[in-house]
Amino acid sequence: MKIGVIGTGTVGQTIAAALADKKHDVLIGTRDPKATMARDAGGPMGGGPFRDWAAAHPAIGLRTIREAASHGELVFFATQGASAVAAVQAAGAALDGKIVVDISNPLDFSKGFPPFLFVGNTDSLGEQMQQAAPKARIVKSLNTVTAALMVNPRALAGGAHTMFVAGNDADAKATVTTFLMEQFGWSDVVDIGGIEAARATESLLLPWTRLYGALKTPLFGFHVVR
Amino acid sequence: MKIGVIGTGTVGQTIAAALADKKHDVLIGTRDPKATMARDAGGPMGGGPFRDWAAAHPAIGLRTIREAASHGELVFFATQGASAVAAVQAAGAALDGKIVVDISNPLDFSKGFPPFLFVGNTDSLGEQMQQAAPKARIVKSLNTVTAALMVNPRALAGGAHTMFVAGNDADAKATVTTFLMEQFGWSDVVDIGGIEAARATESLLLPWTRLYGALKTPLFGFHVVR
Repeated sequence: MKIGVIGTGTVGQTIAAALADKKHDVLIGTRDPKATMARDAGGPMGGGPFRDWAAAHPAIGLRTIREAASHGELVFFATQGASAVAAVQAAGAALDGKIVVDISNPLDFSKGFPPFLFVGNTDSLGEQMQQAAPKARIVKSLNTVTAALMVNPRALAGGAHTMFVAGNDADAKATVTTFLMEQFGWSDVVDIGGIEAARATESLLLPWTRLYGALKTPLFGFHVVR
Repeated sequence: MKIGVIGTGTVGQTIAAALADKKHDVLIGTRDPKATMARDAGGPMGGGPFRDWAAAHPAIGLRTIREAASHGELVFFATQGASAVAAVQAAGAALDGKIVVDISNPLDFSKGFPPFLFVGNTDSLGEQMQQAAPKARIVKSLNTVTAALMVNPRALAGGAHTMFVAGNDADAKATVTTFLMEQFGWSDVVDIGGIEAARATESLLLPWTRLYGALKTPLFGFHVVR
């Protein structure tokens, strides 16, 4: 399957590598590919320079956001929250009709750790992205666990934790649910509502970041026990 | 143990009845006991008139907020979110030095269901209550499950779900943790931080209310799998 992954940080790298490993045809999109390859620093979440990671993953190309979005039959948005809406705008009409998995979180670290949300409660990044790309079929998902667990949920408790999907297109949610189960191994995926339910799943980053501080590991997940 | 329970709704009734069943000496506090006993309607969350419930629970007295707070060696606040700070103010110096379990949630249903939070993200009801009673040892807890599960977590998955405590007083959190385990049967209680971590656990009401809509039952809990 042709897949676009927008974002060159840990989440984008992890999603892209996991899908390339499964022989999908993956392009990563970034605002300015030359600048990204020239960068000496890693992302704000750590890691080395992107070009080192790219050299280790020669099957994965780096293009502009619009080119990667055009390439993908399925497109993952894995940018920092503050860049998410601009990235959707940069992709433009390339997203029309496509299923877009939005992984972004509206985290603001400007006051330190834990972060607060720069949008929430009565609005969400998922909704803002859907508004910026009204013809995209946006499904909010994967944003509630650390990158390693997104693509390998069974690394934790045999996968006995819950992933959420939120979005306005029922078929897109069903497709993403199947994709998460078959490609990554998720077993409990809950449809939590329309794209406005992104308010709920993005707000999980408030307990998530506190728990990261309390548990001293990012390797945890929320299981909705019922 | 002498226990005060502030609030006459479903949560207050459930906590009070569970503790009276265990032979604790429980007083419920309300702004105006005569008015509460005269009321014909149930609370906004359902149930019959309070006086019917009171008649079925003759061991549990109804007094003013200050009297019930004075009575309790341990005091639970289980009012509606919008009344929580005023209730703390009404209790006044009766809370000085006492361990106070704050169960309230800042839910605003004025725009319908699901509700939004009237405080959150960079502040919380727990913090506002602590500010209103600086000498109380407030522990935010129990607010993330439906009332029946607060006092009987084992009714769901044998109790394999997580409760949180947040507060500034480590001894108070340890005491509440032991109380929740011994009196109600909680087995997984996570200390998520200072009272400002109430922002995190109160925000869980955003996914909670969406999940209530999706799952069609309030009988669920969040298990932090790690």
